Amino acid sequence: MRQFPERLLNGYNNFMSGRYADERDRYRTLAEAGQSPHTLVVACCDSRAAPETIFDCGPGELFVVRNVANMVPPYEPDNQYHATSAAIEFAVQALKIANIVIMGHGRCGGIKAALDPNMEPLSPGDFIGKWMSLVRPAADQIQSNDLMTQGERQTALERVSIRNSISNLRTFPYVKALEEQGKLQLHGAWFDISTGELWVMDAMTGDFMRPSDLATAAADSEPAA
Amino acid sequence: MRQFPERLLNGYNNFMSGRYADERDRYRTLAEAGQSPHTLVVACCDSRAAPETIFDCGPGELFVVRNVANMVPPYEPDNQYHATSAAIEFAVQALKIANIVIMGHGRCGGIKAALDPNMEPLSPGDFIGKWMSLVRPAADQIQSNDLMTQGERQTALERVSIRNSISNLRTFPYVKALEEQGKLQLHGAWFDISTGELWVMDAMTGDFMRPSDLATAAADSEPAA
Amino acid sequence: MRQFPERLLNGYNNFMSGRYADERDRYRTLAEAGQSPHTLVVACCDSRAAPETIFDCGPGELFVVRNVANMVPPYEPDNQYHATSAAIEFAVQALKIANIVIMGHGRCGGIKAALDPNMEPLSPGDFIGKWMSLVRPAADQIQSNDLMTQGERQTALERVSIRNSISNLRTFPYVKALEEQGKLQLHGAWFDISTGELWVMDAMTGDFMRPSDLATAAADSEPAA
Amino acid sequence: MRQFPERLLNGYNNFMSGRYADERDRYRTLAEAGQSPHTLVVACCDSRAAPETIFDCGPGELFVVRNVANMVPPYEPDNQYHATSAAIEFAVQALKIANIVIMGHGRCGGIKAALDPNMEPLSPGDFIGKWMSLVRPAADQIQSNDLMTQGERQTALERVSIRNSISNLRTFPYVKALEEQGKLQLHGAWFDISTGELWVMDAMTGDFMRPSDLATAAADSEPAA
Repeated sequence: MRQFPERLLNGYNNFMSGRYADERDRYRTLAEAGQSPHTLVVACCDSRAAPETIFDCGPGELFVVRNVANMVPPYEPDNQYHATSAAIEFAVQALKIANIVIMGHGRCGGIKAALDPNMEPLSPGDFIGKWMSLVRPAADQIQSNDLMTQGERQTALERVSIRNSISNLRTFPYVKALEEQGKLQLHGAWFDISTGELWVMDAMTGDFMRPSDLATAAADSEPAA
Repeated sequence: MRQFPERLLNGYNNFMSGRYADERDRYRTLAEAGQSPHTLVVACCDSRAAPETIFDCGPGELFVVRNVANMVPPYEPDNQYHATSAAIEFAVQALKIANIVIMGHGRCGGIKAALDPNMEPLSPGDFIGKWMSLVRPAADQIQSNDLMTQGERQTALERVSIRNSISNLRTFPYVKALEEQGKLQLHGAWFDISTGELWVMDAMTGDFMRPSDLATAAADSEPAA
Repeated sequence: MRQFPERLLNGYNNFMSGRYADERDRYRTLAEAGQSPHTLVVACCDSRAAPETIFDCGPGELFVVRNVANMVPPYEPDNQYHATSAAIEFAVQALKIANIVIMGHGRCGGIKAALDPNMEPLSPGDFIGKWMSLVRPAADQIQSNDLMTQGERQTALERVSIRNSISNLRTFPYVKALEEQGKLQLHGAWFDISTGELWVMDAMTGDFMRPSDLATAAADSEPAA
Repeated sequence: MRQFPERLLNGYNNFMSGRYADERDRYRTLAEAGQSPHTLVVACCDSRAAPETIFDCGPGELFVVRNVANMVPPYEPDNQYHATSAAIEFAVQALKIANIVIMGHGRCGGIKAALDPNMEPLSPGDFIGKWMSLVRPAADQIQSNDLMTQGERQTALERVSIRNSISNLRTFPYVKALEEQGKLQLHGAWFDISTGELWVMDAMTGDFMRPSDLATAAADSEPAA
């Protein structure tokens, strides 16, 4: 018979003898009382950017959606399957989370594909092509800028896409209402895989900067469009 | 201005001074060479069941999709947005991952909602209701069993849903082809939040058991329907 | 002449030189004073699930009924022979036992037979077919669930049958009365032959769990139907 | 909530750390391969006469029916529930056991009740009264013998009842046939709780004697009626 991957079983054994052993009571309590995470993170599937790792969060803290390129589509109540919108609805309406973080990262394969005009569909169904079309207008505009390097264009679209997802979040009526009531905060973050640096979005300007630079920068900022 | 959540910034500082400091080279290499994860995990958004934590995996190992109730919809090349299908396409066709693990868990809020005949939509768009309708026939059949306890029905549907997602994976032509060629293996796993136990699916029977019990049980097994 | 089985005589000699030698006084006292067991166990005939072995109990502790699939039929004062009902009556009314444990187990041959729609009678009298018809409605309902594996259906029916027997116990007027007076407690247990694990029934929900998990789980439970 | 009896949980823990730990492989193998017991024992529910204890048998050896006074009713294919007959059918026809042992014991409460002409029903349903009526004619005849002491009458009926059960076994067509073909052997045994002695029945004469006395006695014996 097919075996469960050895690497995963070994990792699980490490978990059980290490982290779980240390946090047994916490897991028990979380099982009994139910989860009450403070933050919804919309992150990328990328194997190098796990939010629990980067934010060093334990069980019960982060409700995490992961899709290719950490995107939120606009609100479309069309009775189709919407994995991401369903998770947002559940996090906001059922779990009453206090924060939503759109967490992008550098060298994102999805964003890279969106910027490639010669990208062939990965399969006839072309799910990636359709999915990345969520940033199609932005990708086209950025790609047409022949003054920026390919690396600059990629970083630019990674960040534009985060702001785009935050705008899309506000098309969800309850997200918009709760944000206006001060009960829900929307944030952007971008992780640099190469240097390990986290850049967070200034909510007023939409600029990304290191947290240490954020406070000072806020003084002369203007609202993001 | 709105501050980025303090808890996350503190966690990030822990990451930088701890894990990242230890794995600086690995992150650098992963940034330069690109990711090459061995496994795609389809996991739940639940804050208590992060796959990197439970499998104790480091950066670069797991390509992770997380949606409510860790579901894979059937192959539907209908030119709509399919977050999960796009991630599967990218993982299998672009990253050439060797394993797909559907990872469910106990006390899943999505599964609980699917079993509740009186569940009200969480919002007018009812994204969760539509999303969980992926297991509607199974949920109805299991809920109609009035001999099992609510806890037993929930565990049953959590496991049926994992098998259902594996069946749906096989409706993706390239997943089916690669599996038949022995280049891709499909697995199921179920994590018990309360006890920390991992139950893995016997690929032949579809039964879930502790890994230590798996090898011996394989002898007298029959293929799952 | 036909010899008494050698294996049993050898085993008896072990008993005499070992356990009996150690507990001679206890056997004498029990012979003189009569038995006063604290618990009635209704167990299966299965050779792998002897209650004295699993509960490590000595002489005088457990009054034990064993029939195929550890079942209690409903109260039927019809002047027929009722081996199990007679034992219950004797244990409760004459011996005043304080607990009744219905003890099921995994891989039960009787339950397996009940789930097999093509099961042929083992003999023209079909005693097993009739006996297992005590769980016929439950077996039919569970067998009709084509989403669960055969192993899952079997475990489900093993546990449903335990709850069914406990319900049947309450149709005995004196069992019901004594339980209501707090003088008699009804319990369920399920033994996993493969792993040696004992799962006990949460009296409120009817769910089965490892004893170590039982206390914490009781908090949010509801009464079983 | 009601707790599972502490004494049983402690005993189970002893089992797990002791016997099960020693016989883990045997339990696993028995779970996978199924049981194949060599002997069916029909024993009494009495807490002082557990057959696994007295024959020092391990898991997988004895298929055990236990009812009050270890009785086998005559073959009655009347479509009623017959716990004991069902177990016999399963043991002989499905498990192909090689031996049946009817195992009685001294100071049996059921036999004592059968000998008591003033015995009141233990409850209106009088299940014990009906059940013990299986030995009613024998009990009446023995009780009318006013030359024997009460103790002698009790021992006498305990042994008569064993022979009676063996006769009843032979009313099962397949038991009779298999015995005649030499594929199944029927035995009687009687356990003296007070002294720990096992008396086995001479198949030819029906007499009970210590195993050490059996061989010599066989020489001058005659068939039992």
